[in-house]
Amino acid sequence: MVSFGRVEAIFIISPGTSNSGGESSKESSRSSTPVLAADRTERLRDKMRRRTESGDHWFSLEFFPPRTASGAVNLVSRFDRMGSGGPLFIDITWHPAGDPGSNKETSSMMIASTAVNYCGLESILHLTCCNQTKEKITGYLSKAKHLGLKNIMALRGDPVGADWEEEEGGFNYATDLVKHIRCEFDDYFDICVAGYPTGHPEAESYDEDLRHLKEKVDAGADFIITQLFFRADTFLKFVRDCRAIGITCPILPGIFPIQGYQSLRQLVKLSKLEVPEEIMRVIEPIKDNDAAIRNYGIEQTVGMCRVLLESGNVPGLHFYTLNREVATMEVLRQLGLWIEDPRRPLPWAVSAHPKRKVEDVRPIFWASRPKSYIYRTQDWDDFPNGRWGNSSSPAFGELNDYYLFYLKSKSSKDALLKMWGEELTSEQSVYEVFTSYIKAQPNCAGHKVMCLPWNDELLAPETNLMMDELDKVNRRGVLTINSQPTINGKPSDDPIVGWGPPGGYVFQKAYLEFFTSSENVTVLLKVLKKYEPRVNYHIVNVHGQNTTNAHDMQPNAVTWGIFPGREIVQPTVVDPVSFMYWKDEAFALWIEQWAKLYEDESPSRMIIKYIHDNYFLVNLVDNDFPLDNCLWQVIDDMFELLDNPPEEQPTDPAK
Amino acid sequence: MVSFGRVEAIFIISPGTSNSGGESSKESSRSSTPVLAADRTERLRDKMRRRTESGDHWFSLEFFPPRTASGAVNLVSRFDRMGSGGPLFIDITWHPAGDPGSNKETSSMMIASTAVNYCGLESILHLTCCNQTKEKITGYLSKAKHLGLKNIMALRGDPVGADWEEEEGGFNYATDLVKHIRCEFDDYFDICVAGYPTGHPEAESYDEDLRHLKEKVDAGADFIITQLFFRADTFLKFVRDCRAIGITCPILPGIFPIQGYQSLRQLVKLSKLEVPEEIMRVIEPIKDNDAAIRNYGIEQTVGMCRVLLESGNVPGLHFYTLNREVATMEVLRQLGLWIEDPRRPLPWAVSAHPKRKVEDVRPIFWASRPKSYIYRTQDWDDFPNGRWGNSSSPAFGELNDYYLFYLKSKSSKDALLKMWGEELTSEQSVYEVFTSYIKAQPNCAGHKVMCLPWNDELLAPETNLMMDELDKVNRRGVLTINSQPTINGKPSDDPIVGWGPPGGYVFQKAYLEFFTSSENVTVLLKVLKKYEPRVNYHIVNVHGQNTTNAHDMQPNAVTWGIFPGREIVQPTVVDPVSFMYWKDEAFALWIEQWAKLYEDESPSRMIIKYIHDNYFLVNLVDNDFPLDNCLWQVIDDMFELLDNPPEEQPTDPAK
Repeated sequence: MVSFGRVEAIFIISPGTSNSGGESSKESSRSSTPVLAADRTERLRDKMRRRTESGDHWFSLEFFPPRTASGAVNLVSRFDRMGSGGPLFIDITWHPAGDPGSNKETSSMMIASTAVNYCGLESILHLTCCNQTKEKITGYLSKAKHLGLKNIMALRGDPVGADWEEEEGGFNYATDLVKHIRCEFDDYFDICVAGYPTGHPEAESYDEDLRHLKEKVDAGADFIITQLFFRADTFLKFVRDCRAIGITCPILPGIFPIQGYQSLRQLVKLSKLEVPEEIMRVIEPIKDNDAAIRNYGIEQTVGMCRVLLESGNVPGLHFYTLNREVATMEVLRQLGLWIEDPRRPLPWAVSAHPKRKVEDVRPIFWASRPKSYIYRTQDWDDFPNGRWGNSSSPAFGELNDYYLFYLKSKSSKDALLKMWGEELTSEQSVYEVFTSYIKAQPNCAGHKVMCLPWNDELLAPETNLMMDELDKVNRRGVLTINSQPTINGKPSDDPIVGWGPPGGYVFQKAYLEFFTSSENVTVLLKVLKKYEPRVNYHIVNVHGQNTTNAHDMQPNAVTWGIFPGREIVQPTVVDPVSFMYWKDEAFALWIEQWAKLYEDESPSRMIIKYIHDNYFLVNLVDNDFPLDNCLWQVIDDMFELLDNPPEEQPTDPAK
Repeated sequence: MVSFGRVEAIFIISPGTSNSGGESSKESSRSSTPVLAADRTERLRDKMRRRTESGDHWFSLEFFPPRTASGAVNLVSRFDRMGSGGPLFIDITWHPAGDPGSNKETSSMMIASTAVNYCGLESILHLTCCNQTKEKITGYLSKAKHLGLKNIMALRGDPVGADWEEEEGGFNYATDLVKHIRCEFDDYFDICVAGYPTGHPEAESYDEDLRHLKEKVDAGADFIITQLFFRADTFLKFVRDCRAIGITCPILPGIFPIQGYQSLRQLVKLSKLEVPEEIMRVIEPIKDNDAAIRNYGIEQTVGMCRVLLESGNVPGLHFYTLNREVATMEVLRQLGLWIEDPRRPLPWAVSAHPKRKVEDVRPIFWASRPKSYIYRTQDWDDFPNGRWGNSSSPAFGELNDYYLFYLKSKSSKDALLKMWGEELTSEQSVYEVFTSYIKAQPNCAGHKVMCLPWNDELLAPETNLMMDELDKVNRRGVLTINSQPTINGKPSDDPIVGWGPPGGYVFQKAYLEFFTSSENVTVLLKVLKKYEPRVNYHIVNVHGQNTTNAHDMQPNAVTWGIFPGREIVQPTVVDPVSFMYWKDEAFALWIEQWAKLYEDESPSRMIIKYIHDNYFLVNLVDNDFPLDNCLWQVIDDMFELLDNPPEEQPTDPAK
């Protein structure tokens, strides 16, 4: 006989549910949206605790703000690249001299905001309090909170000038800043503080410095990141000493891969650290050989990190990147910590702003311009649950607003001219740019076309599946800027089209979006009549002349997923309302990114301007996702009808 | 060359969209939910106009309130049956003597409310104003509005007693009531008024009566239903006369199929109508043969209706049913107007209450008890868009509230005892009742089991597909009360599992819900470990001991549909919160409907009580909808493990 007693033990008694239980609906703290990744809702210290408890090692990356706007554009690209390796967080240093709290695209504040909002990275903003008023500091913190930043590295900072003195009631130590943050913002921010494995250079003693650190933690700091060091022992002793005086929070070692002789000297000078002799002995002889020094730095860092990780006292490593990629990535790869996880929580790049954590649906139009979409909807109050948009949402942000990535290409004007043509002679030469991009082949001048105004990156792997068809239609002036194939229930962990939690199935309706001439559109509309109601279309020109067979202005879900134990998720829709906003952006890119490469009144510029003024933007959805994609057939039919127009029926006047 | 001019003509210029256009988001009156049937949002007069303009004929049905509660239960069943033929609306007469505006289950108000809320029928409530104060009438109208009624048939009614006199400023004519409704409720209600093809019996003349009718329409009535008549010409002349004096609204002929000699005489006496001699000549000789009279009535009515419909002046027919089904249904069938449309807007029976018109998701548990679900959620303020429930919704209504269909079976106690056993001898005899129900076969006493406490109807066609499996498991005490098979993308017009608009695809995850003994549950839990995470389960007993592997208390979508040009619709979910409410109802039905059939302390009652107290309610979902349903395998594995329990491993004390 199987005993029942053992089972009973695993039952959870739900209080208040033995009767009809009005309470239980309150008790259930069911989230308002199907949560696809705990990462999107957890705060940093909880993520850190979860990762530490699960025993896996992780890393984080430190960057400093750039000096120029184009440096900022490059740094944001670096965030995207280095973000793909899976850092637990990144942090942005505070440059008191660089207007760090301003709205300049190079400010610490704006760079951290960009990392959170546009790159979806958990980020820590440094903040120094030395020589600042409380009002000023509160202002920075309020601004950071408003921008969606949730973590602060609280630092004293270096006094400006020699005449600095302690100030009664002012910010004399980082401890004062920690207290101020907790006092003014309660538990909103996660707070990090700095630790000095060899003692702060200005401290009276190592022990005195440890006591200061304990004060910072007691004041409310959540974890510690240390100053760089060169020997694993230095850090491990420091951790032991911290634990001995009752510091229990996580302590992350600051790792500095030596990347060059000059940068090492400069850093050592600033931080007043001593480089151990065994390192100097290796470096001095090769000080003019950058590659050799970097290789040594990688080797030395990997060795030290191995010791740290194997000690069991180090859950994660914090890297001082100096805004460079190669050395840090190599160290992480050798340590096995760089993990490019192809699994995506959603088909599009999520934002880490707290108010967007419930966002689970976007219009497909911005698929290649997610940052533009985030920017243009940044003032929205909420991100609709399960469906896109609603009439009470504010409109999209204006097109003419300035921002780092708005209408800006990552490539230089020269590079763009090489890719898109120094001189255009006809619409046909534009078509050739599109086909070169699609085939990732050199254009007639021998330059590979790596991007288009609507696509900053090369084609997505799933679009590659349709390369032959895309090539064929672009040759004839169906200038595709967005497309997705039909997917009828592929596993959610499919390496190319998968997304969401494991064990699910993802689906897509085929989508095709392109510019084409009004002559083509005239014929296309005739063809589309044959495809009713299978194909939905929206066709619009720059003036807003718009024709569609969409039902009641309702969105059409074109990507969705079915997962175990969850509601349906439909992250991508074709939405008639937002299409009219996208249309403005898509047409503007012809002029802003392409036409303006050429002289005013030049033939090249006139050709792009002609396309902008006269072409239509078309989107097509094949609703019959279990069947083969019919959209290529639609375009073929259009070409067929263009090539063989029906003869005019002669009307016989005698009849 | 194909000219472009012709295409341009069909473009709609959207104002305000040629620039980024903040206005266009306001212009789009996109509804807040994917609308599956215009019928759910249109008001009656618009439906009528749309049907009339499209040229198809329709019908409507008049009922009077019942005298007894069991009469009410039967009438509600009749609404369901007659509703399946597709009436445009039904109307409920007002019985001034029968407390018509009260909360009694037999009142006009409650019957109309039931038709709207629980049967999903567009309904008109009659209202008579004679001898009523304005306050009283306003009270009735407010109550009707609150209950979700949207249409009023405004009547004067018969004066009570002989001493009635016109009252200054009172309700002397139906016109006064129409004016009052428009004055107090603006355009909220659609208003219908009565027309008399042969003149109102109290009117001075036919012309005088027509003028009164014109006044009623001018005061704000939307359409006219006429008194019954016996010759098509009578009605067609009346319509011509109405049009001649400027009455332009729809005029619906009141059709009375003669169903018996006595009922005809009574009606004629009340309405002061004359029966034409050609009809009396036929009827008098057969006045004692009910069947013959009914057949004649059907034939006579069909003939007259054909003339009416062919006249081109009659868009729809209004039937005085006298609360009977046969004659009216037969007339409608012969006219080709009775159309049982298997297409369903959603998998469950919708309610016609205005506030529920956006309702598009329900827990699966109430699949066989939709009226109970509607009743228990009637106080909810909103019906979530796209997903079930949210924590701010009020709790489910209490179980002990009284209502027509709560805990009441349509069958008599006698009939139930015959089906479910005059005397139960063991749990096994309960299992046999379940298997008899599932196989729709007579039980051991020779009575067909037509219902169970959890299922008022025979098995749904889609459940029939699983009859063999259901039979097998019920025999062994897995007492199934709800189930659905896996559906992987069947067309939405599939006659068995289809729902929603055409051209779509519907899906289901397999679902199985049953009561079973604690011994079985113990083994089942072991088996379920092998099926993680493919199978989600909730297992609970009457005391609320609850075990589940549901993720974060999130609902699991188990029925969904993908349609052309729309968002995903997921009308059925397995929701952990509502399951705890359903559990109370499901366990209570054992006692209220079954145990109480037997004497207190009788063995039969004790057996049911034992099951109620000791069995568990289990639900299982197979998340892997593209594969074959594994839930039967789960149950098989449970039986297998019960039959062949693993031998205890003898522990060797020597080792």
